[in-house]
Amino acid sequence: MIKTDILIIGAGPVGLFTVFEAGLLKLRCHLIDALPIPGGQLAEIYPKKPIYDIPGYPSVLAGDLVKNLEEQIAPFEPTYTLGERAETIEKLEDGSFVVTTSKGTKHNAPVVAIAGGLGSFEPRKPPIKEIVDYEDKGVEYIIREPNFYKDKKIIIAGGGDSALDWSIFLTDIAKEVTLVHRRTEFRGALDSVEKVKELVKKGKIKLLTESEVIEIHGKDKVESVTVKNSTEGNKIVEVDHFIPLFGLSPKLGPIANWGLNIEKNAIVVDNATDYSTNIPGIYAIGDVNTYTGKLKLILCGFHEATIMVQSAYKLVNPDAKKLVMKYTTVSGVTGFDGVKKEQKKAITSKI
Amino acid sequence: MIKTDILIIGAGPVGLFTVFEAGLLKLRCHLIDALPIPGGQLAEIYPKKPIYDIPGYPSVLAGDLVKNLEEQIAPFEPTYTLGERAETIEKLEDGSFVVTTSKGTKHNAPVVAIAGGLGSFEPRKPPIKEIVDYEDKGVEYIIREPNFYKDKKIIIAGGGDSALDWSIFLTDIAKEVTLVHRRTEFRGALDSVEKVKELVKKGKIKLLTESEVIEIHGKDKVESVTVKNSTEGNKIVEVDHFIPLFGLSPKLGPIANWGLNIEKNAIVVDNATDYSTNIPGIYAIGDVNTYTGKLKLILCGFHEATIMVQSAYKLVNPDAKKLVMKYTTVSGVTGFDGVKKEQKKAITSKI
Ligand SMILES: Cc1cc2nc3c(=O)[nH]c(=O)nc-3n(C[C@H](O)[C@H](O)[C@H](O)COP(=O)(O)OP(=O)(O)OC[C@H]3O[C@@H](n4cnc5c(N)ncnc54)[C@H](O)[C@@H]3O)c2cc1C
Ligand SMILES: Cc1cc2nc3c(=O)[nH]c(=O)nc-3n(C[C@H](O)[C@H](O)[C@H](O)COP(=O)(O)OP(=O)(O)OC[C@H]3O[C@@H](n4cnc5c(N)ncnc54)[C@H](O)[C@@H]3O)c2cc1C
Repeated sequence: MIKTDILIIGAGPVGLFTVFEAGLLKLRCHLIDALPIPGGQLAEIYPKKPIYDIPGYPSVLAGDLVKNLEEQIAPFEPTYTLGERAETIEKLEDGSFVVTTSKGTKHNAPVVAIAGGLGSFEPRKPPIKEIVDYEDKGVEYIIREPNFYKDKKIIIAGGGDSALDWSIFLTDIAKEVTLVHRRTEFRGALDSVEKVKELVKKGKIKLLTESEVIEIHGKDKVESVTVKNSTEGNKIVEVDHFIPLFGLSPKLGPIANWGLNIEKNAIVVDNATDYSTNIPGIYAIGDVNTYTGKLKLILCGFHEATIMVQSAYKLVNPDAKKLVMKYTTVSGVTGFDGVKKEQKKAITSKI
Repeated sequence: MIKTDILIIGAGPVGLFTVFEAGLLKLRCHLIDALPIPGGQLAEIYPKKPIYDIPGYPSVLAGDLVKNLEEQIAPFEPTYTLGERAETIEKLEDGSFVVTTSKGTKHNAPVVAIAGGLGSFEPRKPPIKEIVDYEDKGVEYIIREPNFYKDKKIIIAGGGDSALDWSIFLTDIAKEVTLVHRRTEFRGALDSVEKVKELVKKGKIKLLTESEVIEIHGKDKVESVTVKNSTEGNKIVEVDHFIPLFGLSPKLGPIANWGLNIEKNAIVVDNATDYSTNIPGIYAIGDVNTYTGKLKLILCGFHEATIMVQSAYKLVNPDAKKLVMKYTTVSGVTGFDGVKKEQKKAITSKI
């Protein structure tokens, strides 16, 4: 059982910054995320795009904002359960919560902060009836460890950047790479498309356009798939792995069944006090919450997290005296070991 | 009469960021500040100190944060009335407000956003009864334009950085510089103290320690002052200007008499909706406001400003249809001329 002070569900920008504000109050945090990396929408949807409305940043790439947040919270040593979805919540007699993930990992904390954004990112699946039976038996929707495919025959489906980039990357590792796409045009970066064309010429990638995988075959695991071409009809391709990379789409998912007040696919909170939900001890911050005038913006989530931890502090330390806020400029940032962390040099702009 | 959409009182970090969020909604802003430069407490109290809790900045110097905010809002061309204190407010028949400053400058806008922080920074004055009669007649508490002192005899009083630095700077401009300080130790940077000692040796600064100015003389303007030394008694020093640099202290000041609900020296706002005050059309954001759970933090003020402008938009455009928020990442930052502004390159951290 993983124990912590504040269990944060969702490691997007808001979940990450919560670690910092909690740390200033000497509260420890653990984060759960369905994605294999922190950053939420910023990491998953637009890591290379500039954001213009982060206060004090005339422009910052989403991926860099995530990196900076990770650096900022490092003194407070957050721990993570990544690649697992929070599924169920249970209240113990002592008032604390136990949250269990899709892989059965259990977490215990007196306070739960849901920073789940638009929900956990779930892969878009192709409409093949038997596909669920082959999941983790040769069908994968996310590539976690490229070396897993060493000397294997793989078929990747998709027409976006991840399908293109993984096809290129895996030619050096896999025995055989086939790329299947329904259309002839790709939605990826121009140089990735050129690179794929080059590898097709060299015989390193087999490209099947105007095609789609419609059936999966195999006894205990994937052994072959049926590929349908719009003019040439069906053919069987022998493969060890079928990897559909059709992108991820967010789903509020199991949290919707936790007994929380839900409106417009979001959790209703009390914005006049502390962003608490209808269940004492559970808060909701960032894109996942809703209240009068709510704006789904990163900077608003930062504020909500900061206000929320003040309230959480009282739940974690019921006997503590009133908190006196100290300015970071005056008292610095001190880790749990009592050591004042040397931050890297100030990031400044030359103007 | 200066006309604008949102008249912002206070050009601290929160007032500055308001320009950006208003600009995204095509609302123009004008800022009034009692200080001669933008930045509020960050510029006045701790420009060279690092702040650690600006989200996404592991560390940023207060002065650099102000510069970055100025760069961020530049596309929305804010205008300023600096070095003047907002004194009175009046409601016109059309529902708009007229705000008049200490120098009589008049401003007209349908919405007033008070981002006044701890109040307007007022100079700490030495306890000399007749000093008010000599203000702007040879007595100045802030140096705005050094060349004003060309070929003049000046006496500066104080023991901090500004007294030291201005004494050094003005030796090249003024005819004669005298520095008076009550103690023998200075609270300034070591190298400034060394530099002053050097200039004293060279005869460029007259240093009077354990001394203070206790009287001012002159018919229509300062002609001389009485300096009292704790062991040697009083002497008269002939000067054209007496400049006490004892620092600035904030006062809520005239805003306290505008009919707003005040608690704990701050303006009560409705944090459950839009940070509006009890007077429709007047909002209060940042350190100057108070509500349940209020934290006087920069990041909270940024959120308050962002929520507030949504409400202000409806007052400025009563007939407009519902606002649809657009992400800056998706639609960029477009100035009032309709031209999409090229931002400087993204500020990123190397990790
Ligand atoms: C294209 C685009 C452009 C944008 N541009 C801007 C912009 O310019 N400015 C701006 O302020 N905002 C912008 N946004 C919005 C911004 O990305 C969101 O406001 C922000 O990501 C919200 O952060 P968050 O931490 O609340 O949630 P998210 O970033 O959504 O992160 C939530 C995380 O929680 C995880 N999660 C959810 N449920 C579970 C569960 N049950 N178990 C495990 N993990 C779970 C998810 O996998 C996800 O990683 C943009 C969004 C998009 C899509
Ligand atoms: C030493 C110190 C360290 C700090 N460290 C941190 C930190 O680490 N993190 C953090 O988040 N915060 C910190 N703060 C607090 C932070 O500085 C404030 O939260 C922030 O400045 C508030 O911004 P503001 O724009 O609301 O007000 P201010 O910065 O106070 O600006 C208000 C402006 O309004 C002007 N004004 C007021 N009344 C009038 C009037 N009638 N007419 C004209 N002008 C007027 C004032 O002159 C001033 O320039 C610190 C403060 C201090 C003093």
